[in-house]
Amino acid sequence: MKLRELAERLACRLEGDGEVEITRVAGIEDARAGDLTFLANSKYESALTATRASAVLLRDDAAAAPCAMLRTRDPYLAFARAVGIFAPEWRPAAGVHPMAAVAPDATLGEGVSIGAFVSVGAGASVGDRTVVFPNVTIGPGTQIGTDCIIHSNVSLRERVTIGSRVILQNGVVIGGDGYGFARRGDGTHEKIPQVATVVIEDDVELGANTTVDRPAIGQTRIASGTKIDNLVMIGHGVKVGRNVLMAAQVGIAGSTDVADDVVFGGQVGVGGHLQIGRGAVAVGQSGVTNSLDPGAMVAGYPAIDNREWRKASVVFRRLPELKKRIEALEARIAALTARAGAADPGDPRE
Amino acid sequence: MKLRELAERLACRLEGDGEVEITRVAGIEDARAGDLTFLANSKYESALTATRASAVLLRDDAAAAPCAMLRTRDPYLAFARAVGIFAPEWRPAAGVHPMAAVAPDATLGEGVSIGAFVSVGAGASVGDRTVVFPNVTIGPGTQIGTDCIIHSNVSLRERVTIGSRVILQNGVVIGGDGYGFARRGDGTHEKIPQVATVVIEDDVELGANTTVDRPAIGQTRIASGTKIDNLVMIGHGVKVGRNVLMAAQVGIAGSTDVADDVVFGGQVGVGGHLQIGRGAVAVGQSGVTNSLDPGAMVAGYPAIDNREWRKASVVFRRLPELKKRIEALEARIAALTARAGAADPGDPRE
Amino acid sequence: MKLRELAERLACRLEGDGEVEITRVAGIEDARAGDLTFLANSKYESALTATRASAVLLRDDAAAAPCAMLRTRDPYLAFARAVGIFAPEWRPAAGVHPMAAVAPDATLGEGVSIGAFVSVGAGASVGDRTVVFPNVTIGPGTQIGTDCIIHSNVSLRERVTIGSRVILQNGVVIGGDGYGFARRGDGTHEKIPQVATVVIEDDVELGANTTVDRPAIGQTRIASGTKIDNLVMIGHGVKVGRNVLMAAQVGIAGSTDVADDVVFGGQVGVGGHLQIGRGAVAVGQSGVTNSLDPGAMVAGYPAIDNREWRKASVVFRRLPELKKRIEALEARIAALTARAGAADPGDPRE
Repeated sequence: MKLRELAERLACRLEGDGEVEITRVAGIEDARAGDLTFLANSKYESALTATRASAVLLRDDAAAAPCAMLRTRDPYLAFARAVGIFAPEWRPAAGVHPMAAVAPDATLGEGVSIGAFVSVGAGASVGDRTVVFPNVTIGPGTQIGTDCIIHSNVSLRERVTIGSRVILQNGVVIGGDGYGFARRGDGTHEKIPQVATVVIEDDVELGANTTVDRPAIGQTRIASGTKIDNLVMIGHGVKVGRNVLMAAQVGIAGSTDVADDVVFGGQVGVGGHLQIGRGAVAVGQSGVTNSLDPGAMVAGYPAIDNREWRKASVVFRRLPELKKRIEALEARIAALTARAGAADPGDPRE
Repeated sequence: MKLRELAERLACRLEGDGEVEITRVAGIEDARAGDLTFLANSKYESALTATRASAVLLRDDAAAAPCAMLRTRDPYLAFARAVGIFAPEWRPAAGVHPMAAVAPDATLGEGVSIGAFVSVGAGASVGDRTVVFPNVTIGPGTQIGTDCIIHSNVSLRERVTIGSRVILQNGVVIGGDGYGFARRGDGTHEKIPQVATVVIEDDVELGANTTVDRPAIGQTRIASGTKIDNLVMIGHGVKVGRNVLMAAQVGIAGSTDVADDVVFGGQVGVGGHLQIGRGAVAVGQSGVTNSLDPGAMVAGYPAIDNREWRKASVVFRRLPELKKRIEALEARIAALTARAGAADPGDPRE
Repeated sequence: MKLRELAERLACRLEGDGEVEITRVAGIEDARAGDLTFLANSKYESALTATRASAVLLRDDAAAAPCAMLRTRDPYLAFARAVGIFAPEWRPAAGVHPMAAVAPDATLGEGVSIGAFVSVGAGASVGDRTVVFPNVTIGPGTQIGTDCIIHSNVSLRERVTIGSRVILQNGVVIGGDGYGFARRGDGTHEKIPQVATVVIEDDVELGANTTVDRPAIGQTRIASGTKIDNLVMIGHGVKVGRNVLMAAQVGIAGSTDVADDVVFGGQVGVGGHLQIGRGAVAVGQSGVTNSLDPGAMVAGYPAIDNREWRKASVVFRRLPELKKRIEALEARIAALTARAGAADPGDPRE
């Protein structure tokens, strides 16, 4: 594709030769002739002077590059779209594979693709143009919206609701039984039947092998636009708001409410029955044991204000030295007291 | 169901109108007319006064509620049973799906249900009334007891033993190879064949995408009544006792013994070759690097006594202030010493 | 097998009765007559004196045992090989199961075994003698080398490259979409198409339910000989070197480079865009937020030098006591100052 045409499709301002042919999008250091690259982070500016790319996406106000330029307010967003323009077509053909098992009363929309070894339970429905890859199990009564992509080996349990344009990476489990037990008098645990359901709203994406549990009563819900990475655990009865981001291996215990626009770094753990306020951020590996105010930014375990935690962490590594300084002070004050020939009311030896 | 009948089935004492029709179990805030709710935690007492539920499960000695009451010693246990009474029937029909692959010499008990795309290996056996959902793989020689529920996409490897009434949520892997390698002289790693087996005893439940590894020698074993949440890793050769609870994303390294009644919070990590004493508790995200005495309660990394850890954590966030106070003390003592016109034996500048 | 023959096959020096019949390899405490055991760790020396094993593998210079001995420079390596000698045969027959779905243009090598409910996509290829267990999905264009073992319920996405002698435990996902989104002006997130690929080199092993994501551009790569445990997350664009070891539940964020011979303990988290130097070690649960020098050994969060962290951790638990000692010092110095009748320039009250 000519750079001129690409500029139009990406709504960027072209500087330089619009006739150059672009065939790929590449990183700033890997790029070669025929590639479009991008500069979204100023720390790669020096790499840009050496790039062999034919063209670069960069901010309106960025310094000029040694190649053709596509200028835009948000180069990273334009990069995202450029990748899509050059992406290989992957969509499998519509239709139901002869080795799928679709219940007679299941409903399949127009243009649906059902792969091999997919099981669609009684009363389930799959919306128009949704693609279901091989080895997926869709439980009875489960409803899936339009234009979803369900990758292989996903398990959707019974009576789960999935919105439209939802993407489930491989191995996702939605609607597994929540971890709910009541202790009997003899110390054994009685299972509380987890028979309520899970709702995944529109435009949600869940990463590979992530699990979203169903509760005994009420529902587990992930609101529209939320994007969750791999191996995350969403406990039973958790409510996740809109446009939330969770990096890999986050775990959220049961019945916690996570408001819109929250961000959790990787491996964050969040306790049960908490309220996480809108836009709150927990940095990677934080352990959130209390509810968070809107806009809070926390770190550590137990999680505290991020700046406070950073300052304390700096001192933490100097603890052995501080301990020695305390010991030195104790020795000095004992010596001073002795020299003054006076009793020392604060001396623990008295 | 009339409340009077429900009271009988739950062995609760009825106070109020036994003729009210109950159709659902619901949380105290979501409940409406026709619902049974419960009060197991006193912090929800105020919500109870406003509930629209038709009836409530509560303790024998709890204050009266504004609706009919079912009184019992343990409302949470009665709640668990009430949920079961109203649960929708989910059990698939007995029989083998025509698109299952069952080895000719595999043994299937009475009333077994084998779903689509299930593979049952040579010499495997499945006990009476056990349900195997679609896309499960049961390896050769694996033995499964009676009344188990094996959800979709579970992998049971070769020669694994599963007891009765075991519930495996979707994506569980039992008998994957343990992580065992011997370092060669050239720095590469030689695989130690992991050919021993795994035993899961009766009444165990494992959460979605949890993995239990097989060892090279000996066995990995999870004893009866233990309940494990999602995405947990049980290393090769680990022995887990009875009625143990492990929340999500716990990881236990190889050859550790976990005694009966232990409780691990979410994301706890436990080192290898340790002894975790009966009833020990590790709070969420703890890193257990040493064996624990029976009844110990630990937190932090490295995990220490929980009360000690809590007290130290409170001081942790004040570390920058403590450092300043030490600096102030040093300045004050230097000034005092100078004024005394005397050498200060403890002053590091001397 | 006679011990004499075993000694030859393991290249060990025999001391004692070579005619004893060995039927199994067992741990030093579980071993009984007919078993070979091993002593690789001196802390089990006392157990050796009580072993009922018929023979033991031990170091050339170890004290004599009360049974026949196979001496070698590296008993653990010999143990690994002995386990293999006694391992049951597990290999399924070559051929394609009648209920597999292999694309007409897929290429299968000689001696390949394709299990039930395996889907092999268009243009994919599977090398000689590779075994694919049931319920595996192999995406279009994916290339798998020779002598691999792909366990059940693995998902290999489109256009992924797998080397030779690779072992993928059950539930592994390779080539799931990386977690890449660009924020739009309205706070929603636009998916960056993850259309580049993943390369797994020769002799790699990945544990159960581990996930390796594909990036938008460039590639994710795991170099030869690297062994990764269960439930690990390798982010998009990560490069992992040769002979790296990662214990369970490690998470590595996008675009980080991990050099050869690195070792990560369980539940380690590593930030994105970092450089982890050759042979660096991060102990369990570390949170690595900065690049690491070759040979570094770190712990804690944020991860710091391991010895420094250990020393600081020892003081951490004494923080409440140190705080009291600081308070005592403040009281003592105030008293001394008052007695001296002098102003105290360091007293914060002045």
